[in-house]
Amino acid sequence: MSDKRVYVFGGGSAEGNAGMRDVLGGKGANLAEMTNLGIPVPAGFTISADVCIAFARGSQQYPDGLEAEVYSALAHVEDVMGRKLGDPANPLLLSVRSGARVSMPGMMDTVLNLGLNDSTIKGLIKMSSDERFAYDCYRRLVQMYSDVVLGVSHDRFELFLRHARSEAGVSRDIDLPAETLRGIVDRFKAIVLEETGKPFPDDPREQIWGAIGAVFSSWDVQRAVEYRRIHSIPDDWGTAINVMAMVFGNLGENSATGVAFTRNPSDGSKAPFGEYLPNAQGEDLVAGIRTPFPMSLAEKKSDDQTSLQERMPVQYQELIAFFGRLEEHYRDVQDVEFTIQEGNLWILQTRSAKRTAQAAVRIAVDMTREGFLDKREAVLRVDPDSIDQILHKQVDSETGRQSLARGLNASPGGAVGEVVFTAQDAVRRARDKVPVILVRSETSADDVAGMRASLGILTSTGGITSHAAVVARGWGKPCVVGCSAIHVDYEKEEFTVGAEVVRKGDTITIDGHTGGVTRGALPLIDPPITAYFRELMGWADSFRKLKIRTNADTPEDAERAIQFGAEGIGLCRTEHMFFASDRLPIMREMILARPEDHALRDEALDKLLPFQREDFAGIFRAMADRPVTIRLLDAPLHEFLPRDAERMADLAERMKIPVETVQKRVARLKEMNPMLGHRGCRVGITNSGIYRMQVRAIVEAACDLIGEGARVTPEIMIPLVGTVEELQILRELCQDVQRTVVGERGVEVEVRIGTMIEVPRAALTADRIAEVADFFSFGTNDLTQLTYGYSRDDMWSFVRVYQRQGILPRDPFATLDIAGVGQLVRMAVEKGRSTRPDLKMGICGEHGGDPASVLFCHSIGLDYVSCSPYRVPVARLAAAHAALSEEAVGAAV
Amino acid sequence: MSDKRVYVFGGGSAEGNAGMRDVLGGKGANLAEMTNLGIPVPAGFTISADVCIAFARGSQQYPDGLEAEVYSALAHVEDVMGRKLGDPANPLLLSVRSGARVSMPGMMDTVLNLGLNDSTIKGLIKMSSDERFAYDCYRRLVQMYSDVVLGVSHDRFELFLRHARSEAGVSRDIDLPAETLRGIVDRFKAIVLEETGKPFPDDPREQIWGAIGAVFSSWDVQRAVEYRRIHSIPDDWGTAINVMAMVFGNLGENSATGVAFTRNPSDGSKAPFGEYLPNAQGEDLVAGIRTPFPMSLAEKKSDDQTSLQERMPVQYQELIAFFGRLEEHYRDVQDVEFTIQEGNLWILQTRSAKRTAQAAVRIAVDMTREGFLDKREAVLRVDPDSIDQILHKQVDSETGRQSLARGLNASPGGAVGEVVFTAQDAVRRARDKVPVILVRSETSADDVAGMRASLGILTSTGGITSHAAVVARGWGKPCVVGCSAIHVDYEKEEFTVGAEVVRKGDTITIDGHTGGVTRGALPLIDPPITAYFRELMGWADSFRKLKIRTNADTPEDAERAIQFGAEGIGLCRTEHMFFASDRLPIMREMILARPEDHALRDEALDKLLPFQREDFAGIFRAMADRPVTIRLLDAPLHEFLPRDAERMADLAERMKIPVETVQKRVARLKEMNPMLGHRGCRVGITNSGIYRMQVRAIVEAACDLIGEGARVTPEIMIPLVGTVEELQILRELCQDVQRTVVGERGVEVEVRIGTMIEVPRAALTADRIAEVADFFSFGTNDLTQLTYGYSRDDMWSFVRVYQRQGILPRDPFATLDIAGVGQLVRMAVEKGRSTRPDLKMGICGEHGGDPASVLFCHSIGLDYVSCSPYRVPVARLAAAHAALSEEAVGAAV
Repeated sequence: MSDKRVYVFGGGSAEGNAGMRDVLGGKGANLAEMTNLGIPVPAGFTISADVCIAFARGSQQYPDGLEAEVYSALAHVEDVMGRKLGDPANPLLLSVRSGARVSMPGMMDTVLNLGLNDSTIKGLIKMSSDERFAYDCYRRLVQMYSDVVLGVSHDRFELFLRHARSEAGVSRDIDLPAETLRGIVDRFKAIVLEETGKPFPDDPREQIWGAIGAVFSSWDVQRAVEYRRIHSIPDDWGTAINVMAMVFGNLGENSATGVAFTRNPSDGSKAPFGEYLPNAQGEDLVAGIRTPFPMSLAEKKSDDQTSLQERMPVQYQELIAFFGRLEEHYRDVQDVEFTIQEGNLWILQTRSAKRTAQAAVRIAVDMTREGFLDKREAVLRVDPDSIDQILHKQVDSETGRQSLARGLNASPGGAVGEVVFTAQDAVRRARDKVPVILVRSETSADDVAGMRASLGILTSTGGITSHAAVVARGWGKPCVVGCSAIHVDYEKEEFTVGAEVVRKGDTITIDGHTGGVTRGALPLIDPPITAYFRELMGWADSFRKLKIRTNADTPEDAERAIQFGAEGIGLCRTEHMFFASDRLPIMREMILARPEDHALRDEALDKLLPFQREDFAGIFRAMADRPVTIRLLDAPLHEFLPRDAERMADLAERMKIPVETVQKRVARLKEMNPMLGHRGCRVGITNSGIYRMQVRAIVEAACDLIGEGARVTPEIMIPLVGTVEELQILRELCQDVQRTVVGERGVEVEVRIGTMIEVPRAALTADRIAEVADFFSFGTNDLTQLTYGYSRDDMWSFVRVYQRQGILPRDPFATLDIAGVGQLVRMAVEKGRSTRPDLKMGICGEHGGDPASVLFCHSIGLDYVSCSPYRVPVARLAAAHAALSEEAVGAAV
Repeated sequence: MSDKRVYVFGGGSAEGNAGMRDVLGGKGANLAEMTNLGIPVPAGFTISADVCIAFARGSQQYPDGLEAEVYSALAHVEDVMGRKLGDPANPLLLSVRSGARVSMPGMMDTVLNLGLNDSTIKGLIKMSSDERFAYDCYRRLVQMYSDVVLGVSHDRFELFLRHARSEAGVSRDIDLPAETLRGIVDRFKAIVLEETGKPFPDDPREQIWGAIGAVFSSWDVQRAVEYRRIHSIPDDWGTAINVMAMVFGNLGENSATGVAFTRNPSDGSKAPFGEYLPNAQGEDLVAGIRTPFPMSLAEKKSDDQTSLQERMPVQYQELIAFFGRLEEHYRDVQDVEFTIQEGNLWILQTRSAKRTAQAAVRIAVDMTREGFLDKREAVLRVDPDSIDQILHKQVDSETGRQSLARGLNASPGGAVGEVVFTAQDAVRRARDKVPVILVRSETSADDVAGMRASLGILTSTGGITSHAAVVARGWGKPCVVGCSAIHVDYEKEEFTVGAEVVRKGDTITIDGHTGGVTRGALPLIDPPITAYFRELMGWADSFRKLKIRTNADTPEDAERAIQFGAEGIGLCRTEHMFFASDRLPIMREMILARPEDHALRDEALDKLLPFQREDFAGIFRAMADRPVTIRLLDAPLHEFLPRDAERMADLAERMKIPVETVQKRVARLKEMNPMLGHRGCRVGITNSGIYRMQVRAIVEAACDLIGEGARVTPEIMIPLVGTVEELQILRELCQDVQRTVVGERGVEVEVRIGTMIEVPRAALTADRIAEVADFFSFGTNDLTQLTYGYSRDDMWSFVRVYQRQGILPRDPFATLDIAGVGQLVRMAVEKGRSTRPDLKMGICGEHGGDPASVLFCHSIGLDYVSCSPYRVPVARLAAAHAALSEEAVGAAV
C-alpha cells in the first residue's frame, strides 16, 4: 500500500484511474479516469478508503500528514477552477461525498455547498446574480451540515421552515423570497448555537474537515452496517471520500442538469436514453417535482417537450461524443450524470448502467459485433440469474398499483386470475376456461392437478423450495409462497390481509418476480425471446464444460426443456405418475391390501405396469437418444391415501371395504416426521414389488423403443440411499428384473444403475457406495434439509428472523451452502472417484439452476447439472461463466 | 500358513494347542491343549479350517495330499485307542463334529457312531454286552448320516419309527427291543436305497469322508450364513472338523455323562457346579428326559438324589483335580463336558463358561485375589454391557411362563403391574399405591407424568431410542417398546395380541431384559450389588482416562448418578421443568400471548424465573463442585400445548380466552416435521426471552450457591446449532445476562458457554463454531437421525426388515455408527481443536452408555462421556476397557 492518501483530479489530468476502485471507491476512480480522458469533470480530490478505516477504527484520528495532503490538493483544485475557498469575491464551493468500492445507495452521508459563510455568500450572489439562489444554497448548507456533522435534529429546522412558509404565504421552499431565506439562515444558526452550545462554523476549512469526518463516520452507522451484512460487503473496505468543486445547473436558461444512459437500458437498443431539466439542480430531477424532458428528438413523445438536442444542440453533440468515448473506453453502457452551467458541460459521474436482462443480452451481442467485446466477454456480461426474467410472462413494472401483501418470489412471471381455494375448484373453473389462481395455506401432492390447472399459485406458508414452489418452478408457473400476511379461511372461502377480505372468485394478480400480491388485474407483458438471446446462448454453449440436463416428469416437460437446450433428463420423478385419476385407485388398492395379501398387491402392480411403461416410452421418445435418469418411487405411501374422514369414507365405499380398514391403514402409515420416515429406497426394500414393477416398465419401454430403432440407455436412480447395502440389494433387484425382461424380449438393453446422494451418510460413505453405483446424482434439496436439520415446510417460522440477523445471509435451498452442504458434496465426489474413477456425477436439486451453485458444481468437477426446464438457459449461461472464470484464473496463474 | 492340515491329539500329546484357535477352531484347539496337559481326551484329529474354505469354494474338491494326511492321523488314533476302524472284533467308532473359531451353536452338522456296519456291529455288541444299545447306535448312524450326508428327508424314517413304536406297544425309542431295532436298521437302509438309488455305505472310510464333506458343506447352509451375518463372523473363516473316537457313558452303572462348571456361573461362588446322569449319553442330558443329579454333595437338594461325589468318589476327585488344572491353565472358569465309560473318565470338551454379570464380577475379583489374574485382566474379563443387569430388578429367568408377545428390550429390569392406557390413569392409580404399567402405542412429552408414575412402560411402536425408551432408561425404569404384535385400542381400554385380550386393570409383567410381555405377575428378583462389584469398579476407575458424566434433570437423578460414580452432569435437559403442573399454565400463557404482546410474555417469564432458579440451585447443590452442563430449552413450543379439542377447550376456559385463540395458535405452531422444525436454538433466537430467563435463573442460582460457600461453574449448552452465527448471537445474549446479574448481585460467576454438535452442518463447520464455544457436546441421537435421515419415531416401520437384510446389523441409535456418524464426530473433534486446542469435548447422546461407542469416544480423544445414571457404571467399565486395550495395542507396537 502506498503512503499516498489524497488523489487530485481536474484540469485534464488525475492522479488516480479506473483501476483504483479499491483505493478511490467507484465514484472517485471513475472521476479520475474521466479527467484523464479529457472529459470535463469539476476539479476535486479523493481521500482513500484506507483513511476511513484508520479514522473509524482509531478513535476519530486522522493519520499524520493527511492535513497537508488535503490542503495541497485543495490548492490544486483552487488553481484549476480559478476560485478560492473562502474568497469573498470569487469563492470556491465544494461538495463532500462518500464513494465506496461498491455502490451503497443512500446509506452514507453527503454535504453540499461547503465554503459558504456570511462573507463568501456575497461572491456567490455576484457570480449567480441571484440572491434567492445564493441564500437557498446557504440555508441548505446550514441545515445539511447541522444534521450530518453536528447531529442537530431536523425537527427544529423543519418546524421553522414550515412557519416561514406560512408567514410568506407559500407552500414550497423554492418560492420563498431571498429576504426570508436570509432570515432563515440566521435563525438556523441560532438554533445550532442553542443546541450545540457553539456557533455554526464560519471557517470554510473547518466546514470541510467537519464534513469529511462525518462522512467517514457514516460508514459505521447502523443502516450501513446492516446493508453490508445483507450484501456481504466486508466492514474493513471502508469508503473513500470525494471532495469536488460545486457546479450549478440552475444558473439560468443556459444551465441544465440531467441523467442519461449511453444506450437504452430497457431494451438495449443503440440510442442515448435519458432526461434533463433546464435551469435546475440534480436534486430537482430526483425529487420529481418538475417533469423532466427527453434527451433526444427521437425520444420525444409530444410537442410540449423540448429535447436537449433541440434546446442546446452544441452541448448535446458534445455530450453524445463523450458518450461514445466513455462506451469505447469502458466497453460497456454508461449511466452518466451531467450538469450544464451557463453553457459549460460538466460530467459529474459515470458508471456501468443497470439494465434489464433483455437489454443486457442485446447490448452484449451488439458490442461484440461492434468489436468492443469478444464473445467470452459478451457471455460474461450477462448475469445468468437475470435470464430467468426473459422466459416468463411478466407483470408490467410500470404499474404503480399498491400491492396487498408480499411473499417470497418462488417462481417468476406474472399471473392474473380468479381466486380459488381448492384443487377441485381450480380444475372445475379451468375446465370452463376461467383463469384461476390457487390460494392455499400450503400445497401437497393432492393438489397437483389443481395446481396444473391454475395460472399461478399463492401460499401463506412455505419457503422457496416448498412443494408449491418446486412444482410451480418445474412448470414455469408464477408462484408466491410464504405470504404470511394473508390468512386463508377455507371454510369461508376467503383470505384476509388485515381488514381486507378477498373472496373466492375475486381477481388478483401475483408477481412471481417481486413476490407481490395485488387485488385486480395488472397488465402483463410478453417476454421477448430474440435472435440476440439465441446468439448469446450459442456462444455460452461453446464455452461451458458442464452438461445441462433437466428435471422433467412428462413428455411435454421434456420437449420444452429440449427447446431451452437441455441435453438429457437428470431427474424424472415418478411420483406424479401414480396420482393420475386412472392410476390412483389402483395404487390405493395396493397400499390398502393387507401386507400378507401378496396376490392382491401383485394384481394391482400388474395393472399399473402398462401405465408406467407408456409413461417411460413417452419420455424416451421425447428425449430421442439423450440420457434419461429415472428416479424410482421416492414418496412415502401415505401420500397416496386421503387424509380427511370424508375422503376416507368415499374411498372405502368405492373399494367396497370397511371404512375402518382405510382408517387403520392411514393411521398405521402416519408418521411424526415423514421427511425422515419410510420413503425412498426404504419403501423399495420393504415393498420391493413396486420397484420391480417400475424397473420392468422402464426396461420394457426401452425394449419397445429399441424395437422402433431408437437408441435408449435408461439410467435408474435409487433415492435416499444411506448405506451401501441398500444400493447393493436394490441394484441386484434391478439387474434381476432386467435379465428377466431381456430374456423375455430378446432385446439387449444397457441399463445404468446409480443413486441419489441426498442423505449425509451417503456422502460420508461415498467410497463404499461408488463400488456399486454407475453414477451419483446429488439431491441437494434433501441434503440441505438434513445437513442443516431444516424442514423446508417448517422453516418459514424462523427463517425471516434468521435472514434479518444475518444467520442465513443466503437461502441455502436457493444457493448451495458451500461451507457445509458443499463440503459433503465435495467429499462425496472425491471419495466416489477414489474407488470408481469413471463415476458419472451430477446434481439434480433445485441448486442445479442457481448460478452460484453451478459455479461450485463446475469447480468440483461434476459432469452435469440438472434443473427445471425454465432454468435450463440460466444453467447454460452459468456453466459458461464458470468455465470462463476458471480460464481467466488459469491465464492469470 | 503352513502346509499341514491335519493335527492329531491323544495318547498324552497333541500337534495343536490352545493358541491355534484360528486353524483348529475353538473346540479342536482346546482338545489339543487338554491332551498336552495330560488330561484324558479320546484320541482324534482336527482338520484345519483352511480346508473348509478350499473345499467349499473349490467345488467340493479336497486339496492334494489331504487323504494321506487323514489316514495317517487315523492310524495314530487307532494306535492310541487300541481299536481299528472296520475291525469286526474291536471296532473304532468315530464322531465328526464342526468346530469354528467362534462358537455357532446348532448351526452346523454332526455325525456320530461312524464306523458301524453289519460286520462291526458284532464287535460293538460284544464290547458293550448290550445288543439293544448297539443296534440303537447303528439306527442312529443310519438316520443321522442319511439326513446330514445323503440328504434324505427325516420324514420317512420318523414315520417308520412311529409305526415300529406302535407295533411294539411302546412310546419311546429307548424302549424298543434289540430285535425291533435291527429290523429298523434294515428298513432304514431300504429307504436310503429307494430315495438315493444307492445302498447305504457300509465302508467305514466312505462313511468318514461322507461326514467330513457334509460338515464342511454345512458352513454354507442358509442358517449358518445368516447367523454369521448377524454376528459379524467373516464367511472366509471356515470351520475346522474334529474327528474323535467315540466314548460311551451308557455302558452300565459304572458309566456316566455330565456337564459341569468349575465355579458357579450364576453367582460366581467358588465351587464346582453341574449335573450328571449315570448310565447315559450326552444327548440324554440335553434332551431332559431324565432328571439329572447334582455333581457334589454340597449341591444336593434332597435325599432322592445321589451326587457324583457319592456315587463315583474316585472319578469325582479326579474330575475336580482336572477342574483345578484347567482353571489354572486357562485362568478362567471352564464349562466342561465329560463321560465316564466303565469307570474311565474322559473329558470331551472345555471352554470358557458363560456366566451372569454378577458371577463375572465375583469371579474376576476372586481370581485376582487368587493370583490368577492381575487387576487389568480382571477388569477386561467383565463385559461392560452386562453390568446393566446388575443394577435393575429382574424377572426371574427360571420361570417357564410363556410370554404373550415380545418387543424390543428398551430398558432393563422387570416390572409387574396393572395395565393402564393413559397418563392420567397411571397417575391416579399410582396415587392409590397401585403398581401400574403404562401401555401406549407411543408416548410423548404429555405422558411424562404418567410414565414417572408407572413401574414400567410398554409401547407397540417406536425403537429403542423412542421417547418411551429414552425416558425410561433415564429413570432406570423397565420398558418394552416396538411390541408390534399388540394392538392398543384406547377407546375400549384394552390391547389385543391375536385373539387374546388384555383389559385395563389386568396384571402383566414386562421384562426389559428380554422384551417379553407376560400375562399375570412373574416373580421379580433383587439385583445384588456386592462388595465385589465395588472393588472391580474401583480398579476400572484407576485405569480409565475418560471422565464419566451423567444425563440428569433433577436433584434426585443427580444424587443417584453420583452413587453410581458420575463425575458431573453432561446433559441437564430443561424441558420437563416446564411440564410440572405449577409451571405448565404459565408456559402456555407465554406461548399463547400474541407475538406483539411483549408485556404478557415478559410477565409469564418473570413468573417462571423463580421456579427455574430453584431447579438449578437444587441440581448445583446435589452435584457439589462437580461440573454441570445445562442445555437451554430444546423442545418446540407446540409440545407445551394440548393437541386435542377437549383439552384445548379446557385450557381456553381456564385462561379465559376464546378457544379459537388456542386453536389458531396450536394450528400455527403445528409442523410437518417437528424434528426439523422450530426448536433448539431456533426458539432461543426467535423468542430470546426464554433463553434470557433461563440464563438468568442459572446465573442467579450459581450466585446463591456461591453465597452459601459452594464452588459452582455452570456450563450453558446451546442446542441444535448449525451455524457459527447462531452460537455467536446466543453467546452474546448469555454473556449479557451474566454481566447484568453479576452487576446486580456483586458475585463473580464463571460461566462456560458451549454447544451441542448434533446437526451435521455443525460438525462440518466445527472449526468456525469452536471459535465461539468453550466446549462441544456431541448430541449423537440427533446427529444419527440427521446423518441417516431416520426419525427414531418412525423407523420402526422398516427397521426390522433392515436388520433382517443386514442393512443395519447394529441399531445406530444404540451403537454409534462409526463409518458415517462417527466420521462426522471425528471431523468435528479435529476441526474444533484446530482452532481451539483447549476445547473440552464430550458426548451426551444415548451412545454415552454403550461400550462400543465409549471405546470410539476414547479413541478420538474426547474428554468425557455422559449417560443416564443407570448406565454410569457401564460407561466407567467401558472406559477402562478402552484405555486398557489401547495400552495393549501400545505395548504390542
